[in-house]
Amino acid sequence: MKADLLYEGKAKQVYEAKGEKEKLVLDYKNDATAFNGEKKEVFSGKGRLNNEISAYIFDVLNEQSVPTHFVEKLSETEQLVHRTDIIPLEVVVRNVAAGSITRRLGLQTDTSFNPPLVELFYKDDDLGDPLINDAHALFLSDVTTSELEEIKDNALAINQQLINLFESINLKLVDFKLEFGRLANGRIVLSDEISPDTCRLWDITTNENLDKDVFRQGTGDLLEVYQKLLKRLEART
Amino acid sequence: MKADLLYEGKAKQVYEAKGEKEKLVLDYKNDATAFNGEKKEVFSGKGRLNNEISAYIFDVLNEQSVPTHFVEKLSETEQLVHRTDIIPLEVVVRNVAAGSITRRLGLQTDTSFNPPLVELFYKDDDLGDPLINDAHALFLSDVTTSELEEIKDNALAINQQLINLFESINLKLVDFKLEFGRLANGRIVLSDEISPDTCRLWDITTNENLDKDVFRQGTGDLLEVYQKLLKRLEART
Repeated sequence: MKADLLYEGKAKQVYEAKGEKEKLVLDYKNDATAFNGEKKEVFSGKGRLNNEISAYIFDVLNEQSVPTHFVEKLSETEQLVHRTDIIPLEVVVRNVAAGSITRRLGLQTDTSFNPPLVELFYKDDDLGDPLINDAHALFLSDVTTSELEEIKDNALAINQQLINLFESINLKLVDFKLEFGRLANGRIVLSDEISPDTCRLWDITTNENLDKDVFRQGTGDLLEVYQKLLKRLEART
Repeated sequence: MKADLLYEGKAKQVYEAKGEKEKLVLDYKNDATAFNGEKKEVFSGKGRLNNEISAYIFDVLNEQSVPTHFVEKLSETEQLVHRTDIIPLEVVVRNVAAGSITRRLGLQTDTSFNPPLVELFYKDDDLGDPLINDAHALFLSDVTTSELEEIKDNALAINQQLINLFESINLKLVDFKLEFGRLANGRIVLSDEISPDTCRLWDITTNENLDKDVFRQGTGDLLEVYQKLLKRLEART
Protein backbone atom coordinates (compact mmCIF):
# COMPACT_ATOMS: atom_id res chain seq x y z
CA MET A 1 0.00 0.00 0.00
CA LYS A 2 2.97 2.35 0.68
CA ALA A 3 4.92 4.06 -2.08
CA ASP A 4 7.51 6.86 -1.57
CA LEU A 5 8.25 8.33 1.86
CA LEU A 6 7.20 11.96 1.65
CA TYR A 7 7.97 13.22 5.11
CA GLU A 8 9.12 11.98 8.49
CA GLY A 9 7.83 13.79 11.55
CA LYS A 10 8.50 13.23 15.25
CA ALA A 11 5.70 10.68 15.63
CA LYS A 12 4.81 9.48 12.14
CA GLN A 13 6.14 8.73 8.69
CA VAL A 14 4.03 9.93 5.77
CA TYR A 15 4.04 7.86 2.54
CA GLU A 16 2.30 8.21 -0.76
CA ALA A 17 -0.36 5.53 -1.18
CA LYS A 18 0.47 3.14 -4.00
CA GLY A 19 -1.69 3.90 -7.04
CA GLU A 20 -3.80 6.47 -5.18
CA LYS A 21 -2.54 9.96 -5.94
CA GLU A 22 -4.87 11.70 -3.50
CA LYS A 23 -4.27 9.41 -0.54
CA LEU A 24 -1.44 8.99 1.95
CA VAL A 25 -0.36 6.29 4.37
CA LEU A 26 0.55 7.38 7.89
CA ASP A 27 2.89 4.99 9.71
CA TYR A 28 3.02 5.65 13.45
CA LYS A 29 6.47 5.48 15.05
CA ASN A 30 7.49 4.28 18.49
CA ASP A 31 9.25 7.57 19.35
CA ALA A 32 8.03 9.78 22.16
CA THR A 33 9.29 13.37 22.27
CA ALA A 34 8.57 16.27 24.58
CA PHE A 35 9.65 19.88 25.16
CA ASN A 36 10.05 20.58 21.44
CA GLY A 37 12.15 17.44 20.94
CA GLU A 38 14.53 17.95 23.88
CA LYS A 39 13.32 14.82 25.68
CA LYS A 40 13.17 11.69 23.52
CA GLU A 41 12.64 7.97 24.08
CA VAL A 42 11.54 4.93 22.08
CA PHE A 43 8.65 2.80 23.38
CA SER A 44 8.18 -0.43 21.47
CA GLY A 45 4.43 -0.66 20.77
CA LYS A 46 3.64 3.04 21.08
CA GLY A 47 3.11 3.39 17.31
CA ARG A 48 0.50 0.60 17.35
CA LEU A 49 -1.32 2.12 20.33
CA ASN A 50 -1.48 5.63 18.84
CA ASN A 51 -2.56 4.28 15.46
CA GLU A 52 -5.39 2.32 17.11
CA ILE A 53 -6.46 5.16 19.36
CA SER A 54 -6.37 7.84 16.67
CA ALA A 55 -8.20 5.57 14.20
CA TYR A 56 -10.87 4.91 16.83
CA ILE A 57 -11.38 8.62 17.49
CA PHE A 58 -11.40 9.62 13.81
CA ASP A 59 -13.94 6.87 13.12
CA VAL A 60 -16.18 8.40 15.79
CA LEU A 61 -15.75 11.88 14.30
CA ASN A 62 -16.38 10.64 10.75
CA GLU A 63 -19.60 8.99 11.96
CA GLN A 64 -20.61 12.34 13.45
CA SER A 65 -20.04 14.00 10.03
CA VAL A 66 -16.94 15.95 11.03
CA PRO A 67 -14.93 16.46 7.81
CA THR A 68 -11.61 14.66 8.40
CA HIS A 69 -8.76 13.24 6.33
CA PHE A 70 -9.19 9.74 7.84
CA VAL A 71 -10.17 6.83 5.59
CA GLU A 72 -9.31 3.59 7.43
CA LYS A 73 -6.82 1.69 9.52
CA LEU A 74 -4.59 -0.47 7.31
CA SER A 75 -2.38 -2.39 9.74
CA GLU A 76 -1.11 -2.29 13.31
CA THR A 77 0.79 0.96 12.76
CA GLU A 78 -0.61 2.28 9.46
CA GLN A 79 -3.68 4.20 8.41
CA LEU A 80 -4.94 5.49 5.07
CA VAL A 81 -5.90 9.16 4.86
CA HIS A 82 -6.86 11.68 2.18
CA ARG A 83 -3.87 13.70 1.04
CA THR A 84 -3.95 17.25 2.43
CA ASP A 85 -1.60 20.18 2.45
CA ILE A 86 -1.15 20.77 6.15
CA ILE A 87 -1.99 24.32 7.27
CA PRO A 88 0.97 25.42 9.43
CA LEU A 89 -1.16 26.06 12.52
CA GLU A 90 -1.50 24.03 15.67
CA VAL A 91 -4.99 24.61 16.99
CA VAL A 92 -5.16 24.00 20.72
CA VAL A 93 -8.46 23.85 22.61
CA ARG A 94 -8.33 24.14 26.37
CA ASN A 95 -11.17 23.31 28.77
CA VAL A 96 -8.95 23.44 31.85
CA ALA A 97 -5.56 25.08 32.41
CA ALA A 98 -2.60 22.69 32.41
CA GLY A 99 0.94 22.69 31.07
CA SER A 100 2.45 25.68 29.27
CA ILE A 101 -0.49 28.06 29.70
CA THR A 102 -0.21 27.93 33.49
CA ARG A 103 3.36 29.27 33.29
CA ARG A 104 2.69 31.63 30.41
CA LEU A 105 -0.29 33.39 31.99
CA GLY A 106 0.31 32.65 35.67
CA LEU A 107 -2.79 30.48 36.05
CA GLN A 108 -3.46 27.70 38.54
CA THR A 109 -3.56 24.22 37.04
CA ASP A 110 -7.22 23.16 36.89
CA THR A 111 -8.55 26.70 36.23
CA SER A 112 -11.67 26.17 34.08
CA PHE A 113 -12.16 27.98 30.79
CA ASN A 114 -15.77 28.66 30.05
CA PRO A 115 -16.09 29.14 27.10
CA PRO A 116 -13.22 26.84 26.14
CA LEU A 117 -10.11 28.68 24.98
CA VAL A 118 -8.80 28.29 21.43
CA GLU A 119 -5.12 29.01 20.82
CA LEU A 120 -3.15 29.04 17.59
CA PHE A 121 0.53 28.18 17.35
CA TYR A 122 2.69 28.62 14.27
CA LYS A 123 4.05 25.20 13.25
CA ASP A 124 7.78 25.92 13.02
CA ASP A 125 10.23 23.77 14.99
CA ASP A 126 13.08 26.29 14.61
CA LEU A 127 10.93 29.00 16.19
CA GLY A 128 9.64 26.62 18.89
CA ASP A 129 6.03 26.67 17.57
CA PRO A 130 5.25 30.17 18.91
CA LEU A 131 1.78 31.26 20.05
CA ILE A 132 0.20 33.55 17.47
CA ASN A 133 -3.01 35.51 17.11
CA ASP A 134 -5.52 35.50 14.25
CA ALA A 135 -3.81 38.37 12.43
CA HIS A 136 -0.49 36.49 12.51
CA ALA A 137 -2.23 33.33 11.23
CA LEU A 138 -3.68 35.22 8.27
CA PHE A 139 -0.26 36.70 7.53
CA LEU A 140 1.68 33.42 7.93
CA SER A 141 -0.67 30.95 6.24
CA ASP A 142 -2.83 30.95 3.13
CA VAL A 143 -6.15 30.68 5.00
CA THR A 144 -8.77 33.38 4.54
CA THR A 145 -10.51 35.19 7.41
CA SER A 146 -13.65 33.06 6.97
CA GLU A 147 -11.63 29.83 6.73
CA LEU A 148 -9.86 30.73 9.99
CA GLU A 149 -13.22 31.34 11.67
CA GLU A 150 -14.41 27.98 10.32
CA ILE A 151 -11.29 26.24 11.65
CA LYS A 152 -11.82 27.70 15.13
CA ASP A 153 -15.56 26.93 15.08
CA ASN A 154 -14.81 23.35 13.97
CA ALA A 155 -12.22 22.99 16.73
CA LEU A 156 -14.84 24.02 19.30
CA ALA A 157 -17.41 21.64 17.82
CA ILE A 158 -14.87 18.79 17.84
CA ASN A 159 -14.08 19.71 21.45
CA GLN A 160 -17.70 19.12 22.42
CA GLN A 161 -17.78 15.78 20.59
CA LEU A 162 -14.54 14.66 22.22
CA ILE A 163 -15.70 15.80 25.67
CA ASN A 164 -18.71 13.53 25.25
CA LEU A 165 -16.62 10.63 23.96
CA PHE A 166 -14.12 10.79 26.80
CA GLU A 167 -16.76 11.39 29.47
CA SER A 168 -18.29 8.09 28.40
CA ILE A 169 -15.04 6.38 29.50
CA ASN A 170 -14.72 8.44 32.70
CA LEU A 171 -12.09 10.85 31.37
CA LYS A 172 -11.99 14.63 31.50
CA LEU A 173 -10.69 16.22 28.27
CA VAL A 174 -8.36 18.92 29.62
CA ASP A 175 -6.91 20.15 26.32
CA PHE A 176 -5.83 18.90 22.91
CA LYS A 177 -4.09 19.92 19.72
CA LEU A 178 -5.55 19.69 16.24
CA GLU A 179 -4.11 20.23 12.80
CA PHE A 180 -6.09 20.98 9.68
CA GLY A 181 -5.18 20.38 6.05
CA ARG A 182 -6.46 21.37 2.65
CA LEU A 183 -7.70 18.70 0.22
CA ALA A 184 -6.93 18.93 -3.50
CA ASN A 185 -10.43 20.43 -3.97
CA GLY A 186 -9.56 23.29 -1.60
CA ARG A 187 -11.71 22.11 1.27
CA ILE A 188 -10.18 22.25 4.77
CA VAL A 189 -10.57 19.09 6.89
CA LEU A 190 -9.31 17.83 10.23
CA SER A 191 -5.97 16.14 9.68
CA ASP A 192 -3.00 14.69 11.65
CA GLU A 193 -3.82 12.55 14.70
CA ILE A 194 -5.79 12.63 17.97
CA SER A 195 -4.06 10.50 20.58
CA PRO A 196 -2.64 10.66 24.11
CA ASP A 197 0.35 12.38 22.44
CA THR A 198 -1.90 15.31 21.53
CA CYS A 199 -4.53 15.34 24.33
CA ARG A 200 -4.50 15.78 28.09
CA LEU A 201 -6.93 13.29 29.65
CA TRP A 202 -7.55 13.02 33.37
CA ASP A 203 -9.47 10.19 35.01
CA ILE A 204 -12.61 11.82 36.41
CA THR A 205 -12.49 9.74 39.60
CA THR A 206 -8.77 9.55 40.39
CA ASN A 207 -7.31 12.52 38.40
CA GLU A 208 -4.73 10.06 37.00
CA ASN A 209 -3.20 11.24 33.69
CA LEU A 210 -3.87 8.97 30.71
CA ASP A 211 -1.67 10.94 28.31
CA LYS A 212 1.87 11.95 27.39
CA ASP A 213 2.26 13.97 30.60
CA VAL A 214 3.36 10.70 32.29
CA PHE A 215 6.36 10.81 29.91
CA ARG A 216 6.90 14.59 30.09
CA GLN A 217 6.85 14.51 33.86
CA GLY A 218 8.27 11.03 34.38
CA THR A 219 5.29 10.06 36.53
CA GLY A 220 4.19 6.83 34.92
CA ASP A 221 4.64 4.10 32.32
CA LEU A 222 3.69 5.49 28.91
CA LEU A 223 2.82 2.14 27.32
CA GLU A 224 0.72 1.04 30.28
CA VAL A 225 -1.21 4.30 30.28
CA TYR A 226 -1.80 4.36 26.49
CA GLN A 227 -2.89 0.70 26.66
CA LYS A 228 -5.34 1.56 29.43
CA LEU A 229 -6.83 4.35 27.32
CA LEU A 230 -7.22 2.06 24.28
CA LYS A 231 -8.88 -0.63 26.41
CA ARG A 232 -11.41 1.88 27.76
CA LEU A 233 -12.22 3.06 24.22
CA GLU A 234 -12.62 -0.49 22.95
CA ALA A 235 -14.88 -1.38 25.88
CA ARG A 236 -17.32 1.42 24.93
CA THR A 237 -20.67 0.13 23.76
CA MET B 1 -1.98 70.38 41.49
CA LYS B 2 -0.62 67.02 42.75
CA ALA B 3 -2.05 65.17 45.74
CA ASP B 4 -1.21 61.58 46.75
CA LEU B 5 1.13 59.40 44.70
CA LEU B 6 -1.00 56.49 43.49
CA TYR B 7 1.45 54.48 41.46
CA GLU B 8 5.00 54.61 40.19
CA GLY B 9 5.72 52.95 36.86
CA LYS B 10 8.96 52.60 34.92
CA ALA B 11 8.52 55.91 33.07
CA LYS B 12 5.95 57.93 35.04
CA GLN B 13 4.57 58.66 38.46
CA VAL B 14 0.79 58.87 38.75
CA TYR B 15 -0.73 61.27 41.30
CA GLU B 16 -4.24 62.16 42.27
CA ALA B 17 -5.11 65.68 41.10
CA LYS B 18 -5.73 68.02 44.03
CA GLY B 19 -9.46 68.62 44.43
CA GLU B 20 -10.36 66.78 41.23
CA LYS B 21 -11.47 63.27 42.05
CA GLU B 22 -11.77 62.14 38.44
CA LYS B 23 -8.44 63.52 37.25
CA LEU B 24 -4.83 62.40 37.63
CA VAL B 25 -1.45 64.07 37.19
CA LEU B 26 1.19 62.13 35.26
CA ASP B 27 4.78 63.12 36.09
CA TYR B 28 7.26 61.84 33.51
CA LYS B 29 10.51 60.44 34.91
CA ASN B 30 14.02 60.58 33.48
CA ASP B 31 14.44 56.79 33.60
CA ALA B 32 14.89 54.76 30.45
CA THR B 33 14.38 51.00 30.67
CA ALA B 34 14.52 48.23 28.07
CA PHE B 35 14.21 44.45 27.85
CA ASN B 36 11.55 44.28 30.56
CA GLY B 37 13.63 46.45 32.93
CA GLU B 38 16.94 44.58 32.52
CA LYS B 39 18.68 47.60 30.96
CA LYS B 40 18.21 50.86 32.84
CA GLU B 41 19.69 54.36 32.72
CA VAL B 42 18.74 57.88 33.81
CA PHE B 43 18.73 60.69 31.21
CA SER B 44 18.30 64.13 32.73
CA GLY B 45 15.69 65.88 30.61
CA LYS B 46 14.04 62.73 29.19
CA GLY B 47 10.93 63.25 31.32
CA ARG B 48 10.43 66.76 29.92
CA LEU B 49 10.88 65.55 26.31
CA ASN B 50 8.42 62.66 26.62
CA ASN B 51 5.89 64.86 28.39
CA GLU B 52 6.12 67.45 25.61
CA ILE B 53 6.02 64.86 22.81
CA SER B 54 3.16 62.84 24.29
CA ALA B 55 1.17 66.03 25.05
CA TYR B 56 1.69 67.19 21.46
CA ILE B 57 0.47 63.89 20.02
CA PHE B 58 -2.53 63.58 22.35
CA ASP B 59 -3.50 67.18 21.47
CA VAL B 60 -3.51 66.18 17.80
CA LEU B 61 -5.62 63.09 18.53
CA ASN B 62 -8.04 65.06 20.73
CA GLU B 63 -8.48 67.58 17.88
CA GLN B 64 -9.28 64.63 15.58
CA SER B 65 -11.98 63.49 18.05
CA VAL B 66 -10.18 60.37 19.24
CA PRO B 67 -11.46 59.70 22.77
CA THR B 68 -8.39 59.99 25.05
CA HIS B 69 -7.63 60.56 28.73
CA PHE B 70 -5.51 63.64 27.98
CA VAL B 71 -6.60 67.03 29.30
CA GLU B 72 -3.56 69.36 29.20
CA LYS B 73 0.11 69.81 29.87
CA LEU B 74 0.67 71.32 33.32
CA SER B 75 4.42 71.83 33.55
CA GLU B 76 7.67 70.67 31.99
CA THR B 77 7.19 67.11 33.19
CA GLU B 78 3.53 66.97 34.21
CA GLN B 79 0.24 66.54 32.44
CA LEU B 80 -3.38 66.40 33.59
CA VAL B 81 -5.46 63.43 32.47
CA HIS B 82 -8.87 61.96 33.16
CA ARG B 83 -8.69 59.17 35.70
CA THR B 84 -9.06 55.74 34.12
CA ASP B 85 -8.74 52.18 35.28
CA ILE B 86 -6.05 50.86 32.99
CA ILE B 87 -7.11 47.76 31.04
CA PRO B 88 -4.22 45.29 31.49
CA LEU B 89 -3.52 44.98 27.77
CA GLU B 90 -0.71 46.44 25.71
CA VAL B 91 -2.09 47.00 22.23
CA VAL B 92 0.71 46.99 19.65
CA VAL B 93 0.15 48.06 16.05
CA ARG B 94 2.81 47.10 13.51
CA ASN B 95 3.13 48.53 9.99
CA VAL B 96 6.58 47.07 9.46
CA ALA B 97 8.40 44.20 11.21
CA ALA B 98 11.05 45.29 13.72
CA GLY B 99 12.21 44.18 17.16
CA SER B 100 10.71 41.20 18.96
CA ILE B 101 8.37 40.05 16.18
CA THR B 102 11.27 39.42 13.80
CA ARG B 103 12.75 36.90 16.25
CA ARG B 104 9.42 35.48 17.36
CA LEU B 105 8.12 34.73 13.85
CA GLY B 106 11.38 34.56 11.90
CA LEU B 107 10.62 37.65 9.79
CA GLN B 108 13.04 40.01 8.08
CA THR B 109 13.20 43.46 9.63
CA ASP B 110 11.31 45.84 7.32
CA THR B 111 8.73 43.22 6.20
CA SER B 112 5.55 45.23 5.53
CA PHE B 113 2.23 44.31 7.13
CA ASN B 114 -0.71 45.16 4.96
CA PRO B 115 -3.17 45.33 6.64
CA PRO B 116 -1.30 46.51 9.74
CA LEU B 117 -0.96 43.87 12.43
CA VAL B 118 -2.56 44.33 15.86
CA GLU B 119 -1.06 42.39 18.77
CA LEU B 120 -2.21 42.15 22.38
CA PHE B 121 0.13 41.60 25.30
CA TYR B 122 -0.95 40.92 28.87
CA LYS B 123 0.43 43.69 31.10
CA ASP B 124 2.21 41.68 33.78
CA ASP B 125 5.88 42.38 34.55
CA ASP B 126 6.35 39.09 36.42
CA LEU B 127 5.19 37.16 33.35
CA GLY B 128 7.22 39.36 30.98
CA ASP B 129 4.11 40.87 29.32
CA PRO B 130 3.30 37.76 27.26
CA LEU B 131 1.64 37.87 23.83
CA ILE B 132 -1.99 36.80 24.08
CA ASN B 133 -4.89 36.29 21.70
CA ASP B 134 -8.40 37.73 21.89
CA ALA B 135 -9.76 34.77 23.86
CA HIS B 136 -7.04 35.22 26.50
CA ALA B 137 -7.79 38.96 26.65
CA LEU B 138 -11.47 38.28 27.32
CA PHE B 139 -10.52 35.77 30.02
CA LEU B 140 -7.85 37.97 31.67
CA SER B 141 -9.53 41.39 31.58
CA ASP B 142 -13.02 42.73 32.16
CA VAL B 143 -13.58 43.90 28.57
CA THR B 144 -16.45 42.49 26.54
CA THR B 145 -16.13 41.03 23.05
CA SER B 146 -17.50 44.20 21.47
CA GLU B 147 -15.26 46.43 23.61
CA LEU B 148 -12.24 44.40 22.50
CA GLU B 149 -13.27 44.83 18.86
CA GLU B 150 -13.68 48.57 19.50
CA ILE B 151 -10.22 48.77 21.10
CA LYS B 152 -8.62 47.05 18.11
CA ASP B 153 -10.58 49.17 15.61
CA ASN B 154 -9.58 52.32 17.50
CA ALA B 155 -5.94 51.22 17.53
CA LEU B 156 -6.05 50.85 13.74
CA ALA B 157 -7.74 54.24 13.31
CA ILE B 158 -5.15 55.87 15.58
CA ASN B 159 -2.46 54.13 13.54
CA GLN B 160 -3.71 55.87 10.39
CA GLN B 161 -3.81 59.25 12.15
CA LEU B 162 -0.30 58.78 13.53
CA ILE B 163 1.04 57.59 10.16
CA ASN B 164 -0.21 60.88 8.67
CA LEU B 165 1.20 62.95 11.55
CA PHE B 166 4.65 61.38 11.36
CA GLU B 167 4.76 61.40 7.56
CA SER B 168 4.33 65.16 7.75
CA ILE B 169 7.69 65.31 9.58
CA ASN B 170 9.38 62.77 7.28
CA LEU B 171 9.09 59.81 9.65
CA LYS B 172 7.83 56.30 9.02
CA LEU B 173 5.72 54.90 11.86
CA VAL B 174 7.05 51.34 12.16
CA ASP B 175 5.11 50.23 15.24
CA PHE B 176 3.78 51.55 18.54
CA LYS B 177 2.16 50.46 21.79
CA LEU B 178 -1.10 51.82 23.16
CA GLU B 179 -2.89 51.35 26.44
CA PHE B 180 -6.56 51.95 27.04
CA GLY B 181 -8.38 52.77 30.26
CA ARG B 182 -11.95 52.89 31.50
CA LEU B 183 -13.40 56.20 32.71
CA ALA B 184 -15.69 56.32 35.76
CA ASN B 185 -18.66 56.36 33.35
CA GLY B 186 -17.51 53.03 31.87
CA ARG B 187 -16.31 54.43 28.57
CA ILE B 188 -12.97 53.14 27.25
CA VAL B 189 -10.51 55.80 26.06
CA LEU B 190 -6.92 55.92 24.88
CA SER B 191 -4.69 56.30 27.93
CA ASP B 192 -1.00 56.18 28.94
CA GLU B 193 1.52 57.94 26.63
CA ILE B 194 2.63 58.05 23.00
CA SER B 195 6.31 58.91 22.81
CA PRO B 196 9.60 57.64 21.38
CA ASP B 197 9.55 55.23 24.35
CA THR B 198 6.46 53.57 22.88
CA CYS B 199 6.89 54.04 19.10
CA ARG B 200 9.43 53.02 16.48
CA LEU B 201 10.02 55.93 14.10
CA TRP B 202 12.41 55.78 11.17
CA ASP B 203 13.50 58.82 9.15
CA ILE B 204 12.01 58.28 5.68
CA THR B 205 15.12 59.60 3.95
CA THR B 206 17.97 58.24 6.08
CA ASN B 207 16.31 55.32 7.98
CA GLU B 208 17.77 56.83 11.19
CA ASN B 209 15.89 55.71 14.34
CA LEU B 210 14.20 58.54 16.27
CA ASP B 211 13.08 56.34 19.15
CA LYS B 212 14.15 54.23 22.13
CA ASP B 213 15.89 51.71 19.87
CA VAL B 214 18.99 53.99 20.05
CA PHE B 215 19.03 53.17 23.79
CA ARG B 216 18.06 49.49 23.41
CA GLN B 217 20.76 48.92 20.82
CA GLY B 218 23.28 51.50 22.08
CA THR B 219 23.39 53.13 18.64
CA GLY B 220 22.78 56.78 19.49
CA ASP B 221 22.23 59.53 22.05
CA LEU B 222 18.72 59.16 23.47
CA LEU B 223 18.33 62.82 24.50
CA GLU B 224 19.58 64.12 21.16
CA VAL B 225 17.22 61.87 19.25
CA TYR B 226 14.15 62.65 21.40
CA GLN B 227 14.99 66.39 21.14
CA LYS B 228 15.19 66.08 17.36
CA LEU B 229 11.77 64.43 17.27
CA LEU B 230 10.23 67.17 19.45
CA LYS B 231 11.75 69.91 17.26
CA ARG B 232 10.27 68.33 14.13
CA LEU B 233 6.84 68.14 15.76
CA GLU B 234 7.02 71.77 16.95
CA ALA B 235 8.10 72.93 13.48
CA ARG B 236 4.91 71.47 11.92
CA THR B 237 2.58 74.09 10.56
